[in-house]
Amino acid sequence: MPIVHIHMFEGRSVDQKRELVRTVTDAIVNSVATAPENVHIVIHDMAKHDYGDAGKLGCDAQ
Amino acid sequence: MPIVHIHMFEGRSVDQKRELVRTVTDAIVNSVATAPENVHIVIHDMAKHDYGDAGKLGCDAQ
Amino acid sequence: MPIVHIHMFEGRSVDQKRELVRTVTDAIVNSVATAPENVHIVIHDMAKHDYGDAGKLGCDAQ
Amino acid sequence: MPIVHIHMFEGRSVDQKRELVRTVTDAIVNSVATAPENVHIVIHDMAKHDYGDAGKLGCDAQ
Amino acid sequence: MPIVHIHMFEGRSVDQKRELVRTVTDAIVNSVATAPENVHIVIHDMAKHDYGDAGKLGCDAQ
Amino acid sequence: MPIVHIHMFEGRSVDQKRELVRTVTDAIVNSVATAPENVHIVIHDMAKHDYGDAGKLGCDAQ
Repeated sequence: MPIVHIHMFEGRSVDQKRELVRTVTDAIVNSVATAPENVHIVIHDMAKHDYGDAGKLGCDAQ
Repeated sequence: MPIVHIHMFEGRSVDQKRELVRTVTDAIVNSVATAPENVHIVIHDMAKHDYGDAGKLGCDAQ
Repeated sequence: MPIVHIHMFEGRSVDQKRELVRTVTDAIVNSVATAPENVHIVIHDMAKHDYGDAGKLGCDAQ
Repeated sequence: MPIVHIHMFEGRSVDQKRELVRTVTDAIVNSVATAPENVHIVIHDMAKHDYGDAGKLGCDAQ
Repeated sequence: MPIVHIHMFEGRSVDQKRELVRTVTDAIVNSVATAPENVHIVIHDMAKHDYGDAGKLGCDAQ
Repeated sequence: MPIVHIHMFEGRSVDQKRELVRTVTDAIVNSVATAPENVHIVIHDMAKHDYGDAGKLGCDAQ
């Protein structure tokens, strides 16, 4: 705890996820005063046809 | 915001997901008075062996 | 199943939530071919200071 | 209702998930006094590169 | 990891939640072969007007 | 999208949440190459009796 879920489009590399987890953990530790080992992050990849915005699928957006 | 997560069995077509996102967005816009561009929907597909109901996996149910 | 989570700003009335649950259930039933009794919806109210968009809290947005 | 989401590393067998769903449902039924048919469980598998702990990806941990 | 979210109607006592967390953790540890200290559980209380089943709010169900 | 959910113990001030949202958004924008206006964050406060770790409630931990 804190427990974090991040939902984003698939296609990011493991290096980008490594950087994401490192910097989001830092941001949380510094802003709400907790230890890094308390921060647990789950990344959820989404296909573009599994996201809807303003009533449209991500795969149909311009 | 509103942010919506829908968890359902895998196997629906992109056309069904397109219709799902369009009509769920309409339902939200009309019932809680928000603009369509505020509605973000994430669809999560599940395998039948990743769902439990009444203590039984979906793949074991009759 | 389907299982739905809707996160939105607090302040909606029970009547609005009743209409939300009724119409979102209809939208799901009609678009992905399931029975109404399979649709479970959890509504999560958020305070404006518990939502961030573009790096700003909802209570700070114009 | 209760609705349960379990996020864990991928690689468990269907037999392990069957046991998981059976015993978690029992635990809930016995501790909060509800009927088994009210308990809905969604299992979410994660790759080791989709989990962060203490700022490090699961695939980088010793 | 595993990370667990349990959504249920409000009104359970702290003693019931203590038993819930103890027995659900045991169930997970025994079925998927992990250590207790890896199991993180978040309990989410819901009001009856924040749950919809078969298109009806929990507060309207008989 | 990305959509982020952060679950943490209640008691943080609005100023801490403002800093949390600002710096987590920056971390995401810089690590996975997206625009700030695509980042939506929901903060979920938890009571200590609504969190379980290693089979114990947060309110019982030393």
